Amino acid sequence: MTEPCRDFSSDNIAPAAPEMLEALARANRGTVHSYGDDDLTRRLEDLAAEVFEHEVAIYPVATGTAANALALAMLAPPYGGVFCHESAHIEKDECGAPEFFTGGAKLLAVPGAAGKIAPGAMAPMVAEARERGVHQVRPAAISISQATEWGTVYAREEVATLAEFGRAHGLRLHMDGARFANAVAHLGVSPAAASWQAGVDVLSFGATKNGALAAEAVIFFDRELAGEFEYRRKRGGHLLSKMRFCSAQLVAYLEDGLWLRLAARANAMAARLAAGLQAVPGVRLTQRVQANEVFPALPERLIAALQAEGFGFYRWPAPEAGEGGVIRLVTAWNTTAPDVDFLLAAAARLAGAGG
Amino acid sequence: MTEPCRDFSSDNIAPAAPEMLEALARANRGTVHSYGDDDLTRRLEDLAAEVFEHEVAIYPVATGTAANALALAMLAPPYGGVFCHESAHIEKDECGAPEFFTGGAKLLAVPGAAGKIAPGAMAPMVAEARERGVHQVRPAAISISQATEWGTVYAREEVATLAEFGRAHGLRLHMDGARFANAVAHLGVSPAAASWQAGVDVLSFGATKNGALAAEAVIFFDRELAGEFEYRRKRGGHLLSKMRFCSAQLVAYLEDGLWLRLAARANAMAARLAAGLQAVPGVRLTQRVQANEVFPALPERLIAALQAEGFGFYRWPAPEAGEGGVIRLVTAWNTTAPDVDFLLAAAARLAGAGG
Amino acid sequence: MTEPCRDFSSDNIAPAAPEMLEALARANRGTVHSYGDDDLTRRLEDLAAEVFEHEVAIYPVATGTAANALALAMLAPPYGGVFCHESAHIEKDECGAPEFFTGGAKLLAVPGAAGKIAPGAMAPMVAEARERGVHQVRPAAISISQATEWGTVYAREEVATLAEFGRAHGLRLHMDGARFANAVAHLGVSPAAASWQAGVDVLSFGATKNGALAAEAVIFFDRELAGEFEYRRKRGGHLLSKMRFCSAQLVAYLEDGLWLRLAARANAMAARLAAGLQAVPGVRLTQRVQANEVFPALPERLIAALQAEGFGFYRWPAPEAGEGGVIRLVTAWNTTAPDVDFLLAAAARLAGAGG
Amino acid sequence: MTEPCRDFSSDNIAPAAPEMLEALARANRGTVHSYGDDDLTRRLEDLAAEVFEHEVAIYPVATGTAANALALAMLAPPYGGVFCHESAHIEKDECGAPEFFTGGAKLLAVPGAAGKIAPGAMAPMVAEARERGVHQVRPAAISISQATEWGTVYAREEVATLAEFGRAHGLRLHMDGARFANAVAHLGVSPAAASWQAGVDVLSFGATKNGALAAEAVIFFDRELAGEFEYRRKRGGHLLSKMRFCSAQLVAYLEDGLWLRLAARANAMAARLAAGLQAVPGVRLTQRVQANEVFPALPERLIAALQAEGFGFYRWPAPEAGEGGVIRLVTAWNTTAPDVDFLLAAAARLAGAGG
Repeated sequence: MTEPCRDFSSDNIAPAAPEMLEALARANRGTVHSYGDDDLTRRLEDLAAEVFEHEVAIYPVATGTAANALALAMLAPPYGGVFCHESAHIEKDECGAPEFFTGGAKLLAVPGAAGKIAPGAMAPMVAEARERGVHQVRPAAISISQATEWGTVYAREEVATLAEFGRAHGLRLHMDGARFANAVAHLGVSPAAASWQAGVDVLSFGATKNGALAAEAVIFFDRELAGEFEYRRKRGGHLLSKMRFCSAQLVAYLEDGLWLRLAARANAMAARLAAGLQAVPGVRLTQRVQANEVFPALPERLIAALQAEGFGFYRWPAPEAGEGGVIRLVTAWNTTAPDVDFLLAAAARLAGAGG
Repeated sequence: MTEPCRDFSSDNIAPAAPEMLEALARANRGTVHSYGDDDLTRRLEDLAAEVFEHEVAIYPVATGTAANALALAMLAPPYGGVFCHESAHIEKDECGAPEFFTGGAKLLAVPGAAGKIAPGAMAPMVAEARERGVHQVRPAAISISQATEWGTVYAREEVATLAEFGRAHGLRLHMDGARFANAVAHLGVSPAAASWQAGVDVLSFGATKNGALAAEAVIFFDRELAGEFEYRRKRGGHLLSKMRFCSAQLVAYLEDGLWLRLAARANAMAARLAAGLQAVPGVRLTQRVQANEVFPALPERLIAALQAEGFGFYRWPAPEAGEGGVIRLVTAWNTTAPDVDFLLAAAARLAGAGG
Repeated sequence: MTEPCRDFSSDNIAPAAPEMLEALARANRGTVHSYGDDDLTRRLEDLAAEVFEHEVAIYPVATGTAANALALAMLAPPYGGVFCHESAHIEKDECGAPEFFTGGAKLLAVPGAAGKIAPGAMAPMVAEARERGVHQVRPAAISISQATEWGTVYAREEVATLAEFGRAHGLRLHMDGARFANAVAHLGVSPAAASWQAGVDVLSFGATKNGALAAEAVIFFDRELAGEFEYRRKRGGHLLSKMRFCSAQLVAYLEDGLWLRLAARANAMAARLAAGLQAVPGVRLTQRVQANEVFPALPERLIAALQAEGFGFYRWPAPEAGEGGVIRLVTAWNTTAPDVDFLLAAAARLAGAGG
Repeated sequence: MTEPCRDFSSDNIAPAAPEMLEALARANRGTVHSYGDDDLTRRLEDLAAEVFEHEVAIYPVATGTAANALALAMLAPPYGGVFCHESAHIEKDECGAPEFFTGGAKLLAVPGAAGKIAPGAMAPMVAEARERGVHQVRPAAISISQATEWGTVYAREEVATLAEFGRAHGLRLHMDGARFANAVAHLGVSPAAASWQAGVDVLSFGATKNGALAAEAVIFFDRELAGEFEYRRKRGGHLLSKMRFCSAQLVAYLEDGLWLRLAARANAMAARLAAGLQAVPGVRLTQRVQANEVFPALPERLIAALQAEGFGFYRWPAPEAGEGGVIRLVTAWNTTAPDVDFLLAAAARLAGAGG
């Protein structure tokens, strides 16, 4: 019997799902053309179109940062502005990759509760930019994270509202779907409904956090919009020579609904964690738990006690945390009920001891 | 018994060596920290220091283009110039990635026989740049490919001469080692002798063409010079979250000399191919065969006949080809003697028929 | 007798001071070397050192945006962060020029009253960035506007406090001195006390708004820090071939204290305007008037009435404006007391009519 | 009587024509809106349309490097390629400004006699790039200098041939017209015939070398193509706040044909110089003299002797110079016949003495 896992710091720390390694082994047969001119990559294109019920242009890359930055480079000129939530990964966690790939476009941070862009917040910013003309960057796109950085999920209507605002003002809609699978699993709608039908133009489709080794993709729902994406990918150093190995992961991920099964598991574990934490004295959930992340506010003492027992998590900047602190707990495809229960038991015990 | 492989178009078309998949399977155990804070990545650092007999800073990335472009971004300012051979991969095959990552530095193409920079050719270019001051880019680095794009290998003394010229003029030396293993296998010297002892400051160390799935590394022999490389890697989208899987490949590659064994096989097959081709009427080798590439000049008719029989290769731009054409034949770690002999037999047969 | 000027929209709309055109005429004699190798440019260097009582490296350019963006490119790497007030010109009015010239560095907007960076606001941002490492841009510099975008002036001690914070955290201090003359005239201290003695590393020194045709300069108080600035200026297209004409303006500006006399006039007219507006019913000054800009809050009706009579000014985004609006009134070196009094009389009359 | 001018090093060393200073004085009346919203800038637009007999979009900037780099940024994407002659100013003398403004596009240097792109030389380069796809930059534009860096002038038909090749391959045609006036004066055709009628899409229109203080313009003959140029100009720091002063120079330049009169004078002096030099023993003209530059090959001894007597000129890299050296002699709008004759007399005397 294995020791419960105490590390809830990220879904990036999970291993790859066994299906992924099996897919790599299958892909490793014989000589195939490089740079995406192979059957697995072609299979991926067909499969993505099938899953999304729409013609797509899909481009595998190795990291989510690359997917986001390359996608935005297609939507915003160097003198463009990209609206995003002030907590967005592209704003806070990618070391300026979007600025780099777009050639200097500006991220325009928008406030909003629960990690979601408040739709009303953009209108005055757009109006000011329009009035100031060339003195400000030209608003060009909106980027939203689905699920958000706060573990919440935009409802379909919320996405549609932002998309509509965008269309009315000439702004394309990008979705950072590093945890798109968790969002779709939560929403219980089709991938189509969660993306292009709600107005998404380009999707960064993540697999790494949810069971792959290193496989992400940029998906355009309008092939026209993809334009000369492939040049940008190449010069970004993101055209994999032995592409088949990246495509193989994505094919395995999409086939037979593996991606949604893995995400559903992670989500269920987060829900279990959230339910349990609510019963711990002094603990308060700061966000609704809709995907695979839980953001409880805890007394400082309890945070320290959990860390002392070896539990892994990050503290999260949250002004509204009160006198305690907010931490982020992340579950993954391989998190088990015993893992969660072990943490809950420790929290309950330590919270009690602290009282 | 399997059919002989007729595709000699690239070493990128080869599968991964079985040791690589085994390494991935071993790496896939349990939860480990992301972004390189893991034992395999630490093991890689130690191992690289051991193999190169020198303290190093080593940074895994997924592609050779990324390795080259990131390395050059550390050596040349945006207003800098980088000398390279006019056939260099960075000049001809990376879609401007070096210009992108450096922020606009200029590649200064230098002529020279056999894919090697002619040492005398840089001196007047440096002198002119110095004299023109801010009106030209400031020469900042030299980049050489080892093995070269023409399948030749710089002798140690040739590298040392370029490095010395560089030091005398404030130019750092970068080596594009996408086929470094093949070069070292040919030279029969230590990795140290082939790199830092000859004056190389930064090495793009390739594994993908020589048996990995997707694993390259930038190696600095002076940790000072690595400076804030990690920020550049991150913003380039080249910091792999599940780094362990990339590091695992590189560890397997370096351990027990696997990398040199794989390269030696490919080199031996190229030598066999070269020897056989010299016996085919009408065929002439345009370059010495020192690594895993062969560049024969063939009559047009023979090129067409080989293609008609399904052999795969690229035509190579070569003004000196005479009335025929030059093609590139590449062997890989998995090329077999029967593969080579099958091609040679076909060439002999078709050349005879042509006469 | 000339009609009073009704346009208070900017100091950019003013003509050049007569001394400037005289200086151009004097500079237009004979053949002189180009690109700054001329006596006027050398004279400028000496003069600037004299005025600032310190060795300086001074580089003329044609616009303030160029001065700011080039200065910041010397202080922040492409993956760096630059703290600035959320109302800063570099953040709001330069269309991403700092991002362009730095190669993608990120402006980190800091709140604070009166257009000034609140010193306490940066500490948690620096702490977070340090903790997140390569996932965020590396804080590299602080940029402040002196006078600020709200017409206020940092006291020497305020600048020194920011500089000290910067030194403690490895952040250089840039001052956007598009209206540096107005600030110095207000402070009544030496240019040295207002710049390097308070910890300023690099100053964008403006002359255009204060009487020149097109003349700004980047001034480094540490020549080491200037490094290869000249390469950056050249590749930005900001190395003027007939440099003497730009230098001539800056020499005339600095000689005999012309710059401070012109600024003092503009400041005095702003003070007169402020004093008069305070007597107008329904008008409230939202900021202290310390340089040449006045930001009164007015009833909407009064704003409209003034516009209807042909007065020129911009509305200024200010959430705290209450039910009216905030407008910006700018005086210049050539604004006269009758100009101001004419506006005041109209405001008083229209405000009365409105009541 | 003034001393003859011995400096033939550049046309940048000449003063401004008196008409320019008069224009500045006239422009300096009263308050006008900034950033180009002024009557002089509007007058410039009308005047340019008149002179070129075509609707144009014209954008003043302060330097020729800015004009070229901004123009190319409209024609080539960051992953694009721009063909230019290997001696082109953009390739040799702008410190990578085109690479900077385009976001990393690559200049593709093309050989050709007399400083002109050999039309046949581009075809194989385009073919190779097309075949290599994303591995090479995508050919996007052709840039030619008119007059060339070797003082020669493309005939109308030569320009048309390049434009036609461009159209057939999706390449826009940019003309670096730093010395466009000299070229038009030589050709004796209308500005229209020398530009858009020959297929030029965008013209960098220079005035500084030919009598202005600092005034260049980017002219688009297709307003669609100008697109969002103004954003790029702003973020490049090239939007002059007191635009009227730059526009005033360009208006004076274009009005009443001043520009062509000034250029004709410079050309005539170059012709006189060329004729005289041909009579000097040991001197050989290496290029036809069609504009305002003369490139004689001289014995080393004579070069040194001229320098010793204080004559100013640059040596020019020219492999075909034989045992002597090639120098560049430039005349300007203010060069006089006595200036030229004084040089010729010295050359004749020194050549004789040397014999």
